[in-house]
Amino acid sequence: MIERVLILGTGLLGTSTGLALRKAGYKGVLSGWNRSPESAQIALSMGAIDSIEEDALQAARQSQIILLAAPVYSILDWMEKLAGVLGPQHLVTDVGSTKTLINAAGNRLFNQPGRAGFLPGHPMAGKEISGAAAADPEIFRGAVWLFTTEENQPPLSGESAALATEWREWVQAIGCRTLDLDAARHDELVGWVSHLPQFVATALTALLQTEVGDAPELTAVGGRALREMTRLGSSPYSMWRDVAYTNTEAIATALHALEQRLAHIRENLRTPELRNEFEIANRFRKG
Amino acid sequence: MIERVLILGTGLLGTSTGLALRKAGYKGVLSGWNRSPESAQIALSMGAIDSIEEDALQAARQSQIILLAAPVYSILDWMEKLAGVLGPQHLVTDVGSTKTLINAAGNRLFNQPGRAGFLPGHPMAGKEISGAAAADPEIFRGAVWLFTTEENQPPLSGESAALATEWREWVQAIGCRTLDLDAARHDELVGWVSHLPQFVATALTALLQTEVGDAPELTAVGGRALREMTRLGSSPYSMWRDVAYTNTEAIATALHALEQRLAHIRENLRTPELRNEFEIANRFRKG
Repeated sequence: MIERVLILGTGLLGTSTGLALRKAGYKGVLSGWNRSPESAQIALSMGAIDSIEEDALQAARQSQIILLAAPVYSILDWMEKLAGVLGPQHLVTDVGSTKTLINAAGNRLFNQPGRAGFLPGHPMAGKEISGAAAADPEIFRGAVWLFTTEENQPPLSGESAALATEWREWVQAIGCRTLDLDAARHDELVGWVSHLPQFVATALTALLQTEVGDAPELTAVGGRALREMTRLGSSPYSMWRDVAYTNTEAIATALHALEQRLAHIRENLRTPELRNEFEIANRFRKG
Repeated sequence: MIERVLILGTGLLGTSTGLALRKAGYKGVLSGWNRSPESAQIALSMGAIDSIEEDALQAARQSQIILLAAPVYSILDWMEKLAGVLGPQHLVTDVGSTKTLINAAGNRLFNQPGRAGFLPGHPMAGKEISGAAAADPEIFRGAVWLFTTEENQPPLSGESAALATEWREWVQAIGCRTLDLDAARHDELVGWVSHLPQFVATALTALLQTEVGDAPELTAVGGRALREMTRLGSSPYSMWRDVAYTNTEAIATALHALEQRLAHIRENLRTPELRNEFEIANRFRKG
């Protein structure tokens, strides 16, 4: 049924999704638009899209699936622009990192009689480097693609609902498990297990750059642990700015709790309480 | 020239060194001792040692190289016990994580006329799990094996010096680069690039265990970033206790600086200063 997919934003996730759909056997049209034409050109040359659109709104009207693959505020902007020009024969979906604002916009602008459907999504996949050139269809292999549909939300109408069902099947076809989660719960949880690790990595990496970034012995002394704990230090501000703005309270709560935990460890470097902290950490099962 | 190596401590590093020496073509005797005989048995069955010693001091007297592969305080204990029973025909070396105390003990107890030589070492290789069963000769491939010999230190005497030269060659043969570093500088640097990342990982992982350890959606929502940032949360207290005790000041300084950096980021989640932190982090070259 899905014959035309428009990818709005041919960055890492948008381009990877295009590549993964092709690899999974999707035979329909894949077109793309990007604010920077160079990025769209890379996605085109990689085979992630068949064509580059000049007029994104017109291209959206001709597509069945419109995938918004951009930072959160760009997604929100597109939702405003698209709501008035699309109808029940369209499904808009996204890959945004935080979901409370996007879900609210989806219920306000879409998912109503005569309007397009909106299916909020978030693949738990990515890289510390952004951009089409880093795209890789394999990042979805074994990952979870979350959907933050909620119980009290109006159901999708006939055609949008069918498109949503088929889109979920494609998400599985590219290697993801799917899971539905409440949007507020999503933002709370990712605040702990995704945003906190990112901001910790940024803080640690920035601190190390300040303190030992010029040390000539750095490359020799650093090992796997250092590489691993600072990999996310390469993550781009452009994406994380919107995360910080749209999940501020959860991130601030998590950062403050970690500051206290670090102080607790610092004050107990020579007491038996240090054992306790190691033992609690040892019990954590990896996500 | 080296025909008998005794590994005192057949944990992860001791056993890995035995395996790596064999793999690199070492033909002499490799014997081992461990406080827990089960661990020595595992090292024996893996081929990392040829025999298990019952009397470590007597075995040391019969060996040319005595490799101390244990937590820092155990290494210091062994140094006290060994100094009186060994002579210039022996070289004692180690893999301890902090070096100021070990270097001082080396100069006090060894490296004097009539005494054995002591060569303080520290391979920048390891795993988050300890024990002989996790041993792997490949952990040394491409790693740096540091030696913390110092300029103002008495030179090794003839036979010890020759053994030290040959030991450095074996360290290179098993895949390591070698680098000499001042002991105090070593402890300061590893405080930043090894100990800080470990204690951050422990704090983060313990916090996540406390906050979301029971969340049923945890496995689904956590991705590569979470796995990576919490891997070191599995590290054993038994080893890190001695690191915390013997490098307390450097670690406390680093932890306090990170607490401040996290607070700075927390207070700037919605200001342009966040961009600055990401850009500083982006500049860090990985060790």
